[in-house]
Amino acid sequence: MSVLIVGTTALDSIKTPKAENPRLLGGSASHAAVAASFFGPVKLVGVVGDDFPRGYLRLYRGHGIDLEGLQILPGRTFHWSGEYEANMNRRRTLLTELGVFETFTPTLPNSHQKSPFVLLANIAPSLQQHVLNQMARPKFVIADTMDLWLNIALAELLKLIRRLDALVLNDSEAQQLTKEDNLFIALGKIHKLGPKYVIIKQGSHGSVLSSPRGVFLCPAYPLRQVVDPTGAGDSFVGGLMGYLASTKGSIDDNIRRAMIYGSVVASFCCEGFGLQQTTRTTRAGIERRVRELEKLTRF
Amino acid sequence: MSVLIVGTTALDSIKTPKAENPRLLGGSASHAAVAASFFGPVKLVGVVGDDFPRGYLRLYRGHGIDLEGLQILPGRTFHWSGEYEANMNRRRTLLTELGVFETFTPTLPNSHQKSPFVLLANIAPSLQQHVLNQMARPKFVIADTMDLWLNIALAELLKLIRRLDALVLNDSEAQQLTKEDNLFIALGKIHKLGPKYVIIKQGSHGSVLSSPRGVFLCPAYPLRQVVDPTGAGDSFVGGLMGYLASTKGSIDDNIRRAMIYGSVVASFCCEGFGLQQTTRTTRAGIERRVRELEKLTRF
Repeated sequence: MSVLIVGTTALDSIKTPKAENPRLLGGSASHAAVAASFFGPVKLVGVVGDDFPRGYLRLYRGHGIDLEGLQILPGRTFHWSGEYEANMNRRRTLLTELGVFETFTPTLPNSHQKSPFVLLANIAPSLQQHVLNQMARPKFVIADTMDLWLNIALAELLKLIRRLDALVLNDSEAQQLTKEDNLFIALGKIHKLGPKYVIIKQGSHGSVLSSPRGVFLCPAYPLRQVVDPTGAGDSFVGGLMGYLASTKGSIDDNIRRAMIYGSVVASFCCEGFGLQQTTRTTRAGIERRVRELEKLTRF
Repeated sequence: MSVLIVGTTALDSIKTPKAENPRLLGGSASHAAVAASFFGPVKLVGVVGDDFPRGYLRLYRGHGIDLEGLQILPGRTFHWSGEYEANMNRRRTLLTELGVFETFTPTLPNSHQKSPFVLLANIAPSLQQHVLNQMARPKFVIADTMDLWLNIALAELLKLIRRLDALVLNDSEAQQLTKEDNLFIALGKIHKLGPKYVIIKQGSHGSVLSSPRGVFLCPAYPLRQVVDPTGAGDSFVGGLMGYLASTKGSIDDNIRRAMIYGSVVASFCCEGFGLQQTTRTTRAGIERRVRELEKLTRF
């Protein structure tokens, strides 16, 4: 089944202690869409300016991503610039130029409104809701978010959360949302806000799912080199949803394995700048790492 | 088979944001010995002063711990006092009184010299070596250490590491020892210092083993409340060695599961001050959490 993905489609300029890469293809929807594309059909909803490189459109198409929902408007593409510290665990934003994103209203083509799987990648919660309002009874809706929305749009975010099947957020965001240091108590508090499934990302330490079948501790794939972690969280949730949409059976039956797939796609993301390494991988390469993770966790 | 454990036997005064507990039974060898005692016979080697509460000797004996190697000398018992911050991830030492520990030389009774399993719990590396020098061809020697010895006794520590089958240390210590941020590269560098097995502890994120059969990602048991993490690392390695000494077959066959048992005993340790919760648990309670960890990681 197909996955509808809405989020940012951006140009990212990324500085690390070792290198500088201007105007890479980035944004939450770009990372999530490429990640999901390894498993089945993906419909991308977003906006770019008329400065958006044609090569990036070709890249999307090369991954079989449906671009009917991608608006190309006069003006500049959303541009984010950030810098990582030596250990890659901290980054700071150097610059954010909204460009055409400032007035973006995601309008879904008719063909998109019946997508059974919906991924509301990181973007303003009001826009995530706007997309959801246009959908006809999706089977499974997941959303990602970030600290920015907790700070400036909490009420909208809480409204959104009530409507989700699953919420994905990182450990510091979970702590901020619940005012609770303990991760497992925080999970319980987030369930009370609405979602049946809550996933807390912990970077190189993996992620934790809380679901009707209990808690699942999902490992991160061990990496000997992290080149650029930008988009790893988006790749994780993209891979997760792509895999989930490709499976038969219940969400409960498949969501643990879906997280493993998400974790593996995220590992490829970290090995190159922007989408460089993700786009180079194959389904066979993903399967190899999934089998490795099985061996790495067996006892 | 029996496990010989040498390390500190101390009184710990522990302050957390919620409570204050003076002169609890503590020290690396105390935590490790009680943890190992759930699986089989344990011989404790250490020193205490004549102020050491008799109740604590009874506690050791209640766990079947052989105290022939515990010296009781005139003077004061080693006393450590520390304070934890709200999230329990950071602690600072308020006071360290060495007492009888200052001139401690561990001398092994004859009956101890043939112990097949040796755990050199955290203590000065020169003392760890002194114990090793008295042993007759042990089957498996593991050592734990701490940042203090990396700072003030690195040469002695490196000499010790060459003689070990396994080294256990935490992530920041591994980074300090190897000057390497990446955990998986650090593991490779530590193997080159001698040990066939290297285990890096990551607190609530679990631990990682590197061994001839590859890497194992060992989860931490999810806790909804951490009362006092003092001794969790010692409990981990104690439980690990206790289980390993109780099994048949090769180290390679059993070490992953041994880490799981260590992880579970450490989880009980964190749930009470000092040894309060560890001493209350049972083998059945440990087995329950091991089965839970199987469910929490299956995909």
